[in-house]
Amino acid sequence: MAIAISPLAPTNVPDMPRIAGVKLATAAAGIRYQNRTDVLLAVFDKGTTVAGVFTKSKCPSAAVDWCRAKLKGGEARALVVNSGNANAFTGKTGRAATSLTAAIAARAIESNPGKVFLASTGVIGEPLDANKFDGVLDELAKNAAPDGWHNAARAIMTTDTFAKVSTATVKLGKTKVRINGMAKGAGMIAPDMATMLAFVFTDAPISAAVLQSLLKAGVADTFNAVTIDGDTSTSDTLLAFATGAAAAKGASVIKRVNDPHLKAFAAAFHGVLADLAEQVARDGEGARKLIEILVEGAETDKSARKIAMSIANSPLVKTAIAGEDANWGRVVMAVGKAGEPANRDKLAIAFNGIRVATKGARDPAYNEEQVSASMKQPKIQIKVNLGMGKGRDRVLTCDLTKDYIAINGDYRS
Amino acid sequence: MAIAISPLAPTNVPDMPRIAGVKLATAAAGIRYQNRTDVLLAVFDKGTTVAGVFTKSKCPSAAVDWCRAKLKGGEARALVVNSGNANAFTGKTGRAATSLTAAIAARAIESNPGKVFLASTGVIGEPLDANKFDGVLDELAKNAAPDGWHNAARAIMTTDTFAKVSTATVKLGKTKVRINGMAKGAGMIAPDMATMLAFVFTDAPISAAVLQSLLKAGVADTFNAVTIDGDTSTSDTLLAFATGAAAAKGASVIKRVNDPHLKAFAAAFHGVLADLAEQVARDGEGARKLIEILVEGAETDKSARKIAMSIANSPLVKTAIAGEDANWGRVVMAVGKAGEPANRDKLAIAFNGIRVATKGARDPAYNEEQVSASMKQPKIQIKVNLGMGKGRDRVLTCDLTKDYIAINGDYRS
Repeated sequence: MAIAISPLAPTNVPDMPRIAGVKLATAAAGIRYQNRTDVLLAVFDKGTTVAGVFTKSKCPSAAVDWCRAKLKGGEARALVVNSGNANAFTGKTGRAATSLTAAIAARAIESNPGKVFLASTGVIGEPLDANKFDGVLDELAKNAAPDGWHNAARAIMTTDTFAKVSTATVKLGKTKVRINGMAKGAGMIAPDMATMLAFVFTDAPISAAVLQSLLKAGVADTFNAVTIDGDTSTSDTLLAFATGAAAAKGASVIKRVNDPHLKAFAAAFHGVLADLAEQVARDGEGARKLIEILVEGAETDKSARKIAMSIANSPLVKTAIAGEDANWGRVVMAVGKAGEPANRDKLAIAFNGIRVATKGARDPAYNEEQVSASMKQPKIQIKVNLGMGKGRDRVLTCDLTKDYIAINGDYRS
Repeated sequence: MAIAISPLAPTNVPDMPRIAGVKLATAAAGIRYQNRTDVLLAVFDKGTTVAGVFTKSKCPSAAVDWCRAKLKGGEARALVVNSGNANAFTGKTGRAATSLTAAIAARAIESNPGKVFLASTGVIGEPLDANKFDGVLDELAKNAAPDGWHNAARAIMTTDTFAKVSTATVKLGKTKVRINGMAKGAGMIAPDMATMLAFVFTDAPISAAVLQSLLKAGVADTFNAVTIDGDTSTSDTLLAFATGAAAAKGASVIKRVNDPHLKAFAAAFHGVLADLAEQVARDGEGARKLIEILVEGAETDKSARKIAMSIANSPLVKTAIAGEDANWGRVVMAVGKAGEPANRDKLAIAFNGIRVATKGARDPAYNEEQVSASMKQPKIQIKVNLGMGKGRDRVLTCDLTKDYIAINGDYRS
């Protein structure tokens, strides 16, 4: 099945600068796909710190288990990502495949396997033949170069229709540092990381502990606030690597979370996460509309998140948006089913800034034609005010179309 | 959009016997639909007891609020059901509409409004003009007759493709009593009652309190174990009415839950609920496959229910079944995302009795062709054994097809 590029794809794709201390290479290892790259090797200079957050699935992939264990060392020399096979639910074979992949990579870069990080995405339950990396990773290690960021993002795609990259430049102390990110993910996307792989790279000198706290703080309103279909992958992985190369140019070395130099960097880092997360929503399988859900006036932020996710994951809300129908009754339904404190008679709902319901009934000034016209836009905002308290949240999702069914019913991803 | 009858519709539609003490009539009140009936009046003899369970939505419809309040009286003389308008999120107007409808019905049957029960289904947020019932309910009260059960079930349909009825005959003491049921519901169906209206009628002499306990016990593994799309309606209503007319023919009068005469009746009553609930799953919007999910070996029954619902509500599992693909990796994903205790290395999964995965990996004897052939059947069983404990559960759902999107994206139900 040929899949066209999502109509929601960003129109401005950034040029990706080099990150001192990072080299990339991609290849076609023949894992599953034909005529495309399916393996990425990123090689890091010595002293590169690493942090990560992962799926909350109770059945995580072998690669997730591997990374969780190796994170304790806090140092990374390589990242190997393959697409086409998730190496999930593959039992002992899966664990062996991670060890073998790391061993092959470590030999190729002359490091040790404990500093090799792994991510796999694709079909679940098929054994991953890591022998296919033998030779391939040696070649990649030889060819690795500071450029090729777009190629790298393409090699990790599965049902994605466009490569997702983001970059930011910010001062750390008096020295400019760079942050590059890439992500893949289009379906099986739900909060708590979903089938999503994302990698962020910086030349900033930041300790593993600080990097971990930036990641943890950063995912809450970015990757964890995106849902495509409510399904959570076995393989979700977000890793950040800091080479520290900018220290040689005078960048402040950051070892404490409350270091005042960190503030601007943290904001830029968060911006890269947010940009990548929005691109994931924009590439939701079959998506034709990007949906932003704002919940205000909930009792707490946590309650607002639950209500926003209930709306974002409602098939009836998502199909209504696909049909360009401002069916706010379905939003009421989704608020009601969330099980959170809500009072029908205080509820207000707006589509794209046009209030359609207030105080438990249709807005007297509600004009269906006006709202319907606005529903033809590619980005739809649904704003719900519960009138209960000060809790608020924002979640991104996309509509549910026949193409989602075609992609997932006709194609074994 | 013309919708064909679900291919999963029951082939044997039962003849529906009379229930002494119950009379029915239907009419076209012009609430929303053209050229079809949209209002049902059921009239009960004096002394009819009533019980009910309702949606857990925090934003229930005005009719649900009305019934909850009136249930306290324990007695019913009439039931008025309309389709086409849910009278939900209609504020004060909605409350006024319920009062007016009950008043019109009470006048027509010469009773009082507190003994009139109401249910509405259809579009949310549109004011329901109860004046349309004026005259219509008088006419219905005059024409009400003991027959016409299939017509009654048709009048309450919305996106249903077939009328749902069920009947049972059972002895209460030494006397035969009858149980008739009808239901509607096809989308916005999730546990805890969903957009589902169901009404059960019996001539058995059963107190309101006992009837309530039968309902409460009966929904757990019937209506609350069915999900179409995970969405929960504002309007879900299950009401049971017992006229007691069979007492005159010698049926035991039941006033205690532990009355030994109740056992056979309770089983038959449960059978009617289970039959109606399965018909709801068989009429899931766009459904082409009935899916039975069995979870065994969970830590507790409650844990098994959460895992079963996680599988049943996964769009990726449902689209795979629509595509006749035995994609058990997506079942693993759904088990993992449920957040319940699970151990990848103990998990076993079977489709239609054919084991495809065991002990954390693909079953060595797994034959994809054999399973694929079996996936062409209209009923698919997914069995998951967690190998953790003795908790088990069973849930019914249906597949997710392009027709679901068409029904909900192209049509404002």
